[in-house]
Amino acid sequence: MRSPADSTAGAPRRPADVPALIDGARAGDARAVARLISLVEVASPALREVAVALAPHTGRARVVGVTGAPGVGRSTATSALVSAYRATGARVGILAVDPSSPYSGGALLGDRVRMQEHAIDNGVFIRSMASRGHLGGLAWATPQALRVLDAAGFDVVIIETVGVGQAEVEIASLADTTVLLLAPGMGDGIQAAKAGVIEAADVFVVNKADREGADQTVRDLRYMLSLGGRHSAAGAWRPEIVRTVAVRAEGIAGVIAAIDKHGEWMTRNGELDVRRRARAASEIEAIVVAALRSQLRDVHGSASLDRLAAQVVTGSIDPHTAADVLLGSLGYVPGST
Amino acid sequence: MRSPADSTAGAPRRPADVPALIDGARAGDARAVARLISLVEVASPALREVAVALAPHTGRARVVGVTGAPGVGRSTATSALVSAYRATGARVGILAVDPSSPYSGGALLGDRVRMQEHAIDNGVFIRSMASRGHLGGLAWATPQALRVLDAAGFDVVIIETVGVGQAEVEIASLADTTVLLLAPGMGDGIQAAKAGVIEAADVFVVNKADREGADQTVRDLRYMLSLGGRHSAAGAWRPEIVRTVAVRAEGIAGVIAAIDKHGEWMTRNGELDVRRRARAASEIEAIVVAALRSQLRDVHGSASLDRLAAQVVTGSIDPHTAADVLLGSLGYVPGST
Repeated sequence: MRSPADSTAGAPRRPADVPALIDGARAGDARAVARLISLVEVASPALREVAVALAPHTGRARVVGVTGAPGVGRSTATSALVSAYRATGARVGILAVDPSSPYSGGALLGDRVRMQEHAIDNGVFIRSMASRGHLGGLAWATPQALRVLDAAGFDVVIIETVGVGQAEVEIASLADTTVLLLAPGMGDGIQAAKAGVIEAADVFVVNKADREGADQTVRDLRYMLSLGGRHSAAGAWRPEIVRTVAVRAEGIAGVIAAIDKHGEWMTRNGELDVRRRARAASEIEAIVVAALRSQLRDVHGSASLDRLAAQVVTGSIDPHTAADVLLGSLGYVPGST
Repeated sequence: MRSPADSTAGAPRRPADVPALIDGARAGDARAVARLISLVEVASPALREVAVALAPHTGRARVVGVTGAPGVGRSTATSALVSAYRATGARVGILAVDPSSPYSGGALLGDRVRMQEHAIDNGVFIRSMASRGHLGGLAWATPQALRVLDAAGFDVVIIETVGVGQAEVEIASLADTTVLLLAPGMGDGIQAAKAGVIEAADVFVVNKADREGADQTVRDLRYMLSLGGRHSAAGAWRPEIVRTVAVRAEGIAGVIAAIDKHGEWMTRNGELDVRRRARAASEIEAIVVAALRSQLRDVHGSASLDRLAAQVVTGSIDPHTAADVLLGSLGYVPGST
């Protein structure tokens, strides 16, 4: 089902009846799920009430990150994964994150035409997340939405994100298992994927495996993986490499098998708990930093920061001394940083 | 000149004689420049002394961001730009930022073989910056290094960064003028560049313009720019589109002319000051947030955050309440966020 919030974003809103929304979401009401995500992805008045009410219901969903450069067939593969999970009866939530765009929006959903086949399936919930153009946007909103889907009883939550870069690695850190898609003949893609993303992935999918160069891509990947230190220790996870032709759903069962295998490995050796604690710590930290940041801007006035910034531009003060002045206004002892 | 820090990174260090280093850097000593960057890019004991001493000398360099997806010829174009600036007698500093890698390193410099032609030129300073694998890494280290190069008297500082994504937009925000490189036949690249990066760029370069499809890329670009709202107001900057074949240095003079034209436009209407104040405000904010973050981890002990994170995983507390507990330990009133 498409998020109903897409069509009602501009409508006036009644105060939220949070317990009713949570009951509705857990009973499968897509509108309730969408409304809850809207309440948590911005700092709404009901945010805390929602957060407290969600907590007891969280921790059950398997969180799968799906990432890859433009052109590897990410949306197609995600859609095929969703179909395969649906065939097992699992309910699937999808957070489609676009770290390159500061805008939320329909344009992004337009790219995802292949996901339309799931638009009328009540066991599927799709939400586009944009970075909202400010630092920390992804770190803030995505885990909050993830908690809503988890509490609403989705068995699998897929976080799908484009591309290459720091934001992608951050998104990968939200997932229990991260799937990196590659395609033949995209040497630049592999080069760009580089150390950070390779290290962050648990399952590698060579999509478009019917194209020339697929064997070479698999070989390149094996070579890059052999260079990494992370996977060489005894008992460590050995990343799986799966070939798919997502547009014909070929190999998708193998992707799910690799995700399940990774899940069993994590459960067996405690890694799942380690990852989820790290994720929770990052989430708490992001909330604290957002609160402090908003205090810097709002309580003490942006005028104060702007005045200091102007002095930095003219060279009459350095940025560290300026930071001390701001920290001092928050009650810190300057120089303690 | 290559940063001498590359070969001495593991050597023991004497305490820094900051005034001598700044004198040396301003007199053209590459070792002094490299040492100062090393002192500011991590929180060294001398960081504050360096920052204070740099401030009066800053604000003179033109800061140019050069960005583009893998394969567009970014290193080649940057190298050609450097040659063209050097021909005018300008001293050029280059910060090569790799937001996809949490590792600093030689591998990245290996990609930049074309920059080698400048390695023995005393008027050129090249430094690779990695994101160091933690949130806020780019926001912290790059502006600090930029201030060193500015204070050392480099006329132009080029911040070169790969790819697509949030980090790239952040890097663009450090520059006075941002140049986005595209190449023909990389439709995915344009698609990936999308709203965020398109909005952030001031000058567009269609490189490899001798290849088939260059006209189409220029048309696509014009169309995308015509959709944007930012540039339609009267007196607003109309982004320039320049064709280049960087490997033969064709069109590079046009890129510099477009950068200069944008600079004159910014100076005329006050935009340069607006951008530099925004940059300084972000820099101050990043320092404040880094200080608070380190306080969360260090002073109150990571044990406290880890314990709260474990409670979030089991659902016995929500992350916002956990954040309140941490904020309370820093002297904030819970619930005020």
